[in-house]
Amino acid sequence: MSTEQERRLLRDTIEAGFRDAAFVTDVGIRLVDCGPGWCESELLVTPRHLQHGGVVHAGVQATIADHTAGAAAATMLDAGRHVVTAEFKINLLRAARSDRLTCRADVLKSGRAIIVVEADVFASVHGEAVLVSRFNATMSVLDLA
Amino acid sequence: MSTEQERRLLRDTIEAGFRDAAFVTDVGIRLVDCGPGWCESELLVTPRHLQHGGVVHAGVQATIADHTAGAAAATMLDAGRHVVTAEFKINLLRAARSDRLTCRADVLKSGRAIIVVEADVFASVHGEAVLVSRFNATMSVLDLA
Amino acid sequence: MSTEQERRLLRDTIEAGFRDAAFVTDVGIRLVDCGPGWCESELLVTPRHLQHGGVVHAGVQATIADHTAGAAAATMLDAGRHVVTAEFKINLLRAARSDRLTCRADVLKSGRAIIVVEADVFASVHGEAVLVSRFNATMSVLDLA
Amino acid sequence: MSTEQERRLLRDTIEAGFRDAAFVTDVGIRLVDCGPGWCESELLVTPRHLQHGGVVHAGVQATIADHTAGAAAATMLDAGRHVVTAEFKINLLRAARSDRLTCRADVLKSGRAIIVVEADVFASVHGEAVLVSRFNATMSVLDLA
Repeated sequence: MSTEQERRLLRDTIEAGFRDAAFVTDVGIRLVDCGPGWCESELLVTPRHLQHGGVVHAGVQATIADHTAGAAAATMLDAGRHVVTAEFKINLLRAARSDRLTCRADVLKSGRAIIVVEADVFASVHGEAVLVSRFNATMSVLDLA
Repeated sequence: MSTEQERRLLRDTIEAGFRDAAFVTDVGIRLVDCGPGWCESELLVTPRHLQHGGVVHAGVQATIADHTAGAAAATMLDAGRHVVTAEFKINLLRAARSDRLTCRADVLKSGRAIIVVEADVFASVHGEAVLVSRFNATMSVLDLA
Repeated sequence: MSTEQERRLLRDTIEAGFRDAAFVTDVGIRLVDCGPGWCESELLVTPRHLQHGGVVHAGVQATIADHTAGAAAATMLDAGRHVVTAEFKINLLRAARSDRLTCRADVLKSGRAIIVVEADVFASVHGEAVLVSRFNATMSVLDLA
Repeated sequence: MSTEQERRLLRDTIEAGFRDAAFVTDVGIRLVDCGPGWCESELLVTPRHLQHGGVVHAGVQATIADHTAGAAAATMLDAGRHVVTAEFKINLLRAARSDRLTCRADVLKSGRAIIVVEADVFASVHGEAVLVSRFNATMSVLDLA
């Protein structure tokens, strides 16, 4: 396979991982781009994503971070394996007021049984990406049933 | 105020905290009961809440745990104060396969500036509550603007 | 093997895990008791364990919690396997002022590749055990080299 | 005060924070350098710092990370205030085999009541700094009694 074919295959696999997760589709999170060890996604914020006071709910931020981090981990896997989140921590650093969130996840350590991934969630404010939450997860690598 | 009046007032306040959070209403999470230092909630699971393989998405579990924990913290507050989540960790212990999730949150430590809350998320399986995730958050106490 | 022989063998194995960890011996942490899925330890606090202001340093609390949790996980293992800490979170709830800390660790979920363990650290105050920190770890199960 | 005087005063304050913490001195952790929002420290590893198998104990890594992060937070404080660790998470990424650990802590978010700090612990291997653990803490800002 050429590098370009590999790149497309990886993107198709990761895109399916967004499309086939009903909650992610329902919330409106979509893949932006990905490569070996990383993934980027975005969400167009609408009133349904909010908490009191007009900020994006922590649950929305956790959802985009967790799913994007899982996708970044999935880029490291051999065929026939998948990842599930064992645990994550998220720091909500600032009130997220924006009509668009973006997320960037990077694999920090890829092991045989565990993949550690970090993700940042940004609010788009006047065209600038402001860091609103930082996320760190332990993913378990499993064989597909 | 009588104890019964106080109980109703607390319940009304906490219920408003569920109703006024658009994302929580949108996902379908509702208050079951609450009292000083604790809160219980539930979610009727539908296909839109799922991840691949038919398990409830980690983001849904994080959302119910975070919101219920915030409500448990809010039961400890004086008027004119509110809480925001500073950080949380969640352990996803088992695949959550169920048509109903319940959540129970308890305040572990209530300080002037910080409230530490723990929450358990259960999947209802054949009428039994199976622990699927454990959650632990640091909430910041703020004065209402 | 009789149940009593099994109990002694388990205790001997766990005791060796305390004795052979130089830092644990150096700090002065010792095994109190253990059984399948749990472990208890203690530390006689001396001035060298303190932080400014006479409280036990967070590092001491993390050390006793981590080692006791690792021992609780080790009680679940087949021969030829061991655990290492992948990650932990600790909440420092109260200033730990005491001449004796105790720790109790319990396995929350024991999987093939991952064991989740929780631990509580208590300060002995006027003969009462006051909870000073709560700890939650993901342990990786590995084959001995 | 000149910038140079300010720099020295900050360094003296932070150095006292290492010297006056008995456990930090006992373990052998010392300040390398600091500035507004950051701190670096080191530890010469000796056999007493080890776990089974000759790796540096997780408790040692947690101690150097926590104390260096607390110092980084302290560089942001007005006179008469101090910080205590509310909670931290640490990911132990690789076996730490080295005769020297270094730690670098940076403030991620400095608020009025809470300071979020991250720290990396490195093992010095053949003159190269290898990341062995990543740490993330919530520090509470308190008024000195």
